[in-house]
Amino acid sequence: MTTFEARLASHAATTDAFLGRVLDDRVDDAGVPERLRQAMRHAVMAGGKRFRPFLVIEVSSLFGVSTRQATATAGALECLHCYSLVHDDLPAMDNDRLRRGQPTVWAAFDDWTAILAGDALLTLSFEILSRSETHANPTVRNELVSALAIAGGPVGMVGGQALDLSSDKLGDPANPTLDYVRRLQAMKTGALIRFACEAGALLGQASDQERLALKSYGAHLGVVFQIADDLLDATGDAATVGKATGKDAAAGKATQVSLLGVEAAKDYLATMVQAALDDLAPFGERGAILAQAVHFAAQRAK
Amino acid sequence: MTTFEARLASHAATTDAFLGRVLDDRVDDAGVPERLRQAMRHAVMAGGKRFRPFLVIEVSSLFGVSTRQATATAGALECLHCYSLVHDDLPAMDNDRLRRGQPTVWAAFDDWTAILAGDALLTLSFEILSRSETHANPTVRNELVSALAIAGGPVGMVGGQALDLSSDKLGDPANPTLDYVRRLQAMKTGALIRFACEAGALLGQASDQERLALKSYGAHLGVVFQIADDLLDATGDAATVGKATGKDAAAGKATQVSLLGVEAAKDYLATMVQAALDDLAPFGERGAILAQAVHFAAQRAK
Repeated sequence: MTTFEARLASHAATTDAFLGRVLDDRVDDAGVPERLRQAMRHAVMAGGKRFRPFLVIEVSSLFGVSTRQATATAGALECLHCYSLVHDDLPAMDNDRLRRGQPTVWAAFDDWTAILAGDALLTLSFEILSRSETHANPTVRNELVSALAIAGGPVGMVGGQALDLSSDKLGDPANPTLDYVRRLQAMKTGALIRFACEAGALLGQASDQERLALKSYGAHLGVVFQIADDLLDATGDAATVGKATGKDAAAGKATQVSLLGVEAAKDYLATMVQAALDDLAPFGERGAILAQAVHFAAQRAK
Repeated sequence: MTTFEARLASHAATTDAFLGRVLDDRVDDAGVPERLRQAMRHAVMAGGKRFRPFLVIEVSSLFGVSTRQATATAGALECLHCYSLVHDDLPAMDNDRLRRGQPTVWAAFDDWTAILAGDALLTLSFEILSRSETHANPTVRNELVSALAIAGGPVGMVGGQALDLSSDKLGDPANPTLDYVRRLQAMKTGALIRFACEAGALLGQASDQERLALKSYGAHLGVVFQIADDLLDATGDAATVGKATGKDAAAGKATQVSLLGVEAAKDYLATMVQAALDDLAPFGERGAILAQAVHFAAQRAK
């Protein structure tokens, strides 16, 4: 196991423990109704690499913030990410019955429970950010709330999902351009990865310059992540990848790979990997683990 | 028009203007995707008395906060209230096609657009609260975020909705008790009315004692509101009420009226009206408009 993999696993365990504790809080008549709590647990405790929490924790550690101090923010972000998966999986959206081999929330419960569990997790993420355990300074907590609301909202993740579904369900636009696909991906998957890095900088009360460098790192990393995914779908075989491939082409979905071709997409991936690594230059050796995260994201495309 | 009605209308116009401005912000490629924006506008600009914004503005004015200073908080709360209506109306939830004579968001657009518009409005409400226009002091903004997330989340409004749908769709519990119905209503409709009053106190940086009195006022007012609604449904005729009545009884829905009977429910309503008025005693003449709000909420039951 590489240092990167060990830290990824360790931060995932820390995040899981935090989320488990939050969801088991106040199991009584003044607490969360039991069916809703079970659905929220099902959504959140379903495993996953916890890559966004890893980024929050590792970026903040550049500024001497301990894992313990960064955990609430990491957990809040993961709550929001999990809500987005619960709603995306709904029959009215992507209609997915399985996620990581387990029934999705609506399949395990029903649609209304999944809608409410998603709403509850989204709301909970802001509640967690507002707590003093997130940061002793309320100004920092307020900056985190603002940044997460922008990243997760209509000009960020939800907006990206709206563009994606307009394309899938309404065929609008009829011929997406490369710029359009990049905007969609930067919103739908990029915004939360960018926020993870920005949140680490906010927790560490980084300088404006450091914060901008880390947002840029997050933006480039998000692109790496997405193109690697698209390449995997286009060129991987199901046995190696561990899930069905060729889904984008079968669905006629416009991706950077379908618009650029495989070779040009690989070139662009390499350019974005280098850009992300360049963003880390100001941090010298301290940025080594974040550099490994870029290679981790890119290597899935091999 | 009474003073109360004039102020209610005036604060509604102020809130509408604020929300219209927020939703028309950044109409460009870096802004909200157009279909999503239209659905959000449809959800928010559909009229309504804006009773919750009225409470935020009037309670904060007890402490010398101007309407202008309270508007962003009032608007954020209304955003959250509107998201809850959009999701409640979905086919998977209450399956309502009409609201105030207009098609609901899913009926005017489709289910996925309505789910995302609701998600976007919920997220936007926290983004608004985090802005400096909400309050100059970030500690106050953080308190507002925390209070709204608790009021709107799994131990508040979303939890109440989960209890209500468990009852409607799963028949669980089979025989709701009065305590159960009161808990459900305090969560589902009470929590946001309580928050509106608490938010006014937070904006005004009221003392702990004043804040508790106003939360208590909000709690009693919420009960008045709900029992008046239940009585209207049980005893009103459609012509006077302006909408279909007898829906609760037809659906076999447990309410305080069905469990207590009409006369005992009216007695309890009178007790709650008095309790809400008593909560205002510390504010003397300054609380007159809030006393009128209690009578307004109760009189709908006549």
